[in-house]
Amino acid sequence: MIGAIEAGGTKFVCAVSDDNLNIKERVRIETGTPEESIPKIILFFSKFDLEGLGVGAFGPTGINKNKPDYGFVRKTPKPGWSDFDFLGTLRGSIKCPIYWTTDVNVAAYGELQKGAAQGMKEAVYLTVGTGIGGGIIHEGKLYSGYSHPELGHIAVRPSPVENDSFSGVCPYHNFCLEGMASGPSIEKRKGVKAASLNDDDPAWKLEAYYLAQAAVDYTLSISPEIIIFGGGVSNQKQLFPLIRESFKEQLNGYVQIPPEDKYIVHAELGDDAGITGALLLAKQVANGDEKAAAYHVYKP
Amino acid sequence: MIGAIEAGGTKFVCAVSDDNLNIKERVRIETGTPEESIPKIILFFSKFDLEGLGVGAFGPTGINKNKPDYGFVRKTPKPGWSDFDFLGTLRGSIKCPIYWTTDVNVAAYGELQKGAAQGMKEAVYLTVGTGIGGGIIHEGKLYSGYSHPELGHIAVRPSPVENDSFSGVCPYHNFCLEGMASGPSIEKRKGVKAASLNDDDPAWKLEAYYLAQAAVDYTLSISPEIIIFGGGVSNQKQLFPLIRESFKEQLNGYVQIPPEDKYIVHAELGDDAGITGALLLAKQVANGDEKAAAYHVYKP
Ligand SMILES: Nc1ncnc2c1ncn2[C@@H]1O[C@H](COP(=O)(O)OP(=O)(O)O)[C@@H](O)[C@H]1O
Ligand SMILES: Nc1ncnc2c1ncn2[C@@H]1O[C@H](COP(=O)(O)OP(=O)(O)O)[C@@H](O)[C@H]1O
Ligand SMILES: [Zn+2]
Ligand SMILES: [Zn+2]
Repeated sequence: MIGAIEAGGTKFVCAVSDDNLNIKERVRIETGTPEESIPKIILFFSKFDLEGLGVGAFGPTGINKNKPDYGFVRKTPKPGWSDFDFLGTLRGSIKCPIYWTTDVNVAAYGELQKGAAQGMKEAVYLTVGTGIGGGIIHEGKLYSGYSHPELGHIAVRPSPVENDSFSGVCPYHNFCLEGMASGPSIEKRKGVKAASLNDDDPAWKLEAYYLAQAAVDYTLSISPEIIIFGGGVSNQKQLFPLIRESFKEQLNGYVQIPPEDKYIVHAELGDDAGITGALLLAKQVANGDEKAAAYHVYKP
Repeated sequence: MIGAIEAGGTKFVCAVSDDNLNIKERVRIETGTPEESIPKIILFFSKFDLEGLGVGAFGPTGINKNKPDYGFVRKTPKPGWSDFDFLGTLRGSIKCPIYWTTDVNVAAYGELQKGAAQGMKEAVYLTVGTGIGGGIIHEGKLYSGYSHPELGHIAVRPSPVENDSFSGVCPYHNFCLEGMASGPSIEKRKGVKAASLNDDDPAWKLEAYYLAQAAVDYTLSISPEIIIFGGGVSNQKQLFPLIRESFKEQLNGYVQIPPEDKYIVHAELGDDAGITGALLLAKQVANGDEKAAAYHVYKP
């Protein structure tokens, strides 16, 4: 039996499955304070004899086991979670190897193995929802450097077409990508829920411009084979042709990429990407895969 | 004996050395058309019995030996070089294993092994000169994905402080990083050579703003342990405190990095970074290092 936790800003999803990823039980726990949420998580898993656990936690979190902040949540507005030893608390009760990484990384890994990036070695996964975050696959593995990427906070150039003077919603950078293109930014501009806008609302063209600009920057710096968009906002299917068109214009042929419609795509696993990826990573550590273990794994 | 070529836009530098990198002979050849330059390169190396050759070529060039454009120069304004089979032409005459990569990659590798990034595993090297280009080190190796990074062409947000309305000099993107912060962009703004500006000219603060913005973006997407600036413009030492200050302001503490003065630094090897790196890579292929060979190496 293997287990998975997808720890998001609004909810935790916990699941257990067999080695073939057939889910035996699954539960949704609202994200309260650690004191409220952690006991429920531990209670859920206490019923099972786990061989491995994969955790995708909201960032920023330390994912390098050689660093003192490994497994800790770093600065976050969520009450009680700043500097909380999340992994340490879990492993007090859950006695199996644990793969520890970010929520976007597990989703990226799910898409790599079972979704849009199957058979590829280089991919970027970007979730566009309440926040914007991304995971990178390089040589078939999750990429991390000094710490994990924070792809949602790169600087963006304001759209020249719409002459965009919106001041952005990111509390750290105002007008970074997340500040200009997250769900809440759309809602602040328009005064209504993003999901309630018409498909031909000009907001989508503007949104596509920023997502395309980010895709250009990732293309030039990370050079993936595919860029996968997930998260609530990406459910707006009409965005994709608009992103591809703007991407082509902004990149202006500077580097070679695969055909745009295979390069800029919607996540295939939808809401299951994260749990799928976390289970696959749990399986790796249960099998003692040393390559996976190098960086991200707590062993009891 | 090992050999190295640093193929730049204005000159080729060719060198041979022993295994300890003691240079035996070195020559500078102006970058003419392939018909003019290649025979001089081949003549130079014909005097030596090479065991390995490292080449850093101006990009864009194909560096993945599994792709049809491997060793070719791609689209470039340099007369005669577009779609030229550079590596194929060299290997017609030079019969030893050849490590083929970009000019910025060999410089990055030189700085990793003998310069500012010694002992590190994750680094970004950025040259700021006639153009802006960069190389990435990940897990101690040169990074490439679908193709090599083109770090100089990411989009930048115009400086809000100076209210910068400069239209940029990049023929592909106008106002990308290279368009706004390369040597020629400084010269076009000011109407004089960049090197002739006073140390306290406001141009340097503006330049620092853009280089800092790029450093923020690389930090968030690539997450290196160090960002090294080389190239002609980086010889302006007063830039470094300005870049660090602006970087701190723009990143706004969002992710953890090493102390700024160790993180944003000047290249240590200066003009020798490229040849040093190319010789080290030549040595690797001469020794048949299979890890190096995986991706970048032509074997006769
Ligand atoms: N179908 C939709 N169309 C447009 N925006 C949506 C849609 N669904 C959710 N959103 C927006 O995405 C954000 C929520 O993102 P989501 O990925 O669902 O969850 P979270 O990021 O909180 O994990 C909200 O700002 C919401 O308005
Ligand atoms: N000391 C200097 N200070 C400022 N700018 C310089 C300096 N030296 C060269 N440059 C500028 O850098 C550019 C040349 O870059 P360089 O790295 O020397 O060569 P290249 O990029 O052509 O290989 C020119 O635009 C030049 O004006
Ligand atoms: Zn931000
Ligand atoms: Zn450009």
